[in-house]
Amino acid sequence: MSKKEEKKKQSEEEVKEIDEAVEQEKTVEEQPQKTELELAQEKAEDFENKYLRAIAETQNIQRRSNEERQTLQRYRSQDLAKKILPSLDNLERALQVEGLTDDVKKGLEMVQESLLQALKEEGIEVVETENFDHNLHMAVQTLPADEDHPADTIAEVFQKGYKLHDRLLRPAMVIVYN
Amino acid sequence: MSKKEEKKKQSEEEVKEIDEAVEQEKTVEEQPQKTELELAQEKAEDFENKYLRAIAETQNIQRRSNEERQTLQRYRSQDLAKKILPSLDNLERALQVEGLTDDVKKGLEMVQESLLQALKEEGIEVVETENFDHNLHMAVQTLPADEDHPADTIAEVFQKGYKLHDRLLRPAMVIVYN
Repeated sequence: MSKKEEKKKQSEEEVKEIDEAVEQEKTVEEQPQKTELELAQEKAEDFENKYLRAIAETQNIQRRSNEERQTLQRYRSQDLAKKILPSLDNLERALQVEGLTDDVKKGLEMVQESLLQALKEEGIEVVETENFDHNLHMAVQTLPADEDHPADTIAEVFQKGYKLHDRLLRPAMVIVYN
Repeated sequence: MSKKEEKKKQSEEEVKEIDEAVEQEKTVEEQPQKTELELAQEKAEDFENKYLRAIAETQNIQRRSNEERQTLQRYRSQDLAKKILPSLDNLERALQVEGLTDDVKKGLEMVQESLLQALKEEGIEVVETENFDHNLHMAVQTLPADEDHPADTIAEVFQKGYKLHDRLLRPAMVIVYN
């Protein structure tokens, strides 16, 4: 082999070696890197979606929690108020007893007024009984309507009804012309 | 330049070209790929952390929301109960009026019992007044303690105290030996 040929061969071998090195680099690093990149990109996308869903979920929970708290606050006195209504009925009955002294009557009225005031401050009020409304009143008896008493006029209130804001605690028991 | 030298130079140039090609490949593909991978990995890690924080935050919000709801439920009757206490005081005063007929007395007692029952069902009870406790009682007057009346014995209850579960709604007003 001439020196020239040797040199050429040497050069070719060098090129081959370098080609192999490049090829090897592609095999060992570049190809897996591409897959690794894809995996990393998928992972990133996956966690981004999970993150966005978690954020949305958190906002939903906060919104529901606020709504629930507002409702709880708004109707918090409902149970105690309902349980107090029979006491108010008893007071009204006591006030109708004949022969009460002025002192007793005054005392009973004070209790009644302070109870109604306490309830009013918490949003509880006596149901209106101007005209019959089946959403607010329960007809326990009917009377025949006539010219002076048109249908759906309330003749008498047996027992007062009460509502808490927009919620009916109990309907008014009424006698109604029909 | 001899042919040898030319060949050597050629070979060197080839090697250099290949080196440059490899270097270029590193710059154009391998280097940016590595950066892209790193970026994707960083992004994945970033969103994973954000996701985990969001999950933890959601759990915190749910826990706090549950605690808050339980507290609201537990003490929901506090405001109405406090406002009802003066009515109970008025009832007690009315019951102490002399010359009440049996009917009136019975009526007043019924109102009183039904009110106390309603309050009890909501967790409100009269504060015990066995022995003086500055957490539950307010001394409005003191009497000198003696052998029959040791210090911190309650002589008289002026006005009843009430508590809702563990919360004091108002202290009992007492006269205490001291």
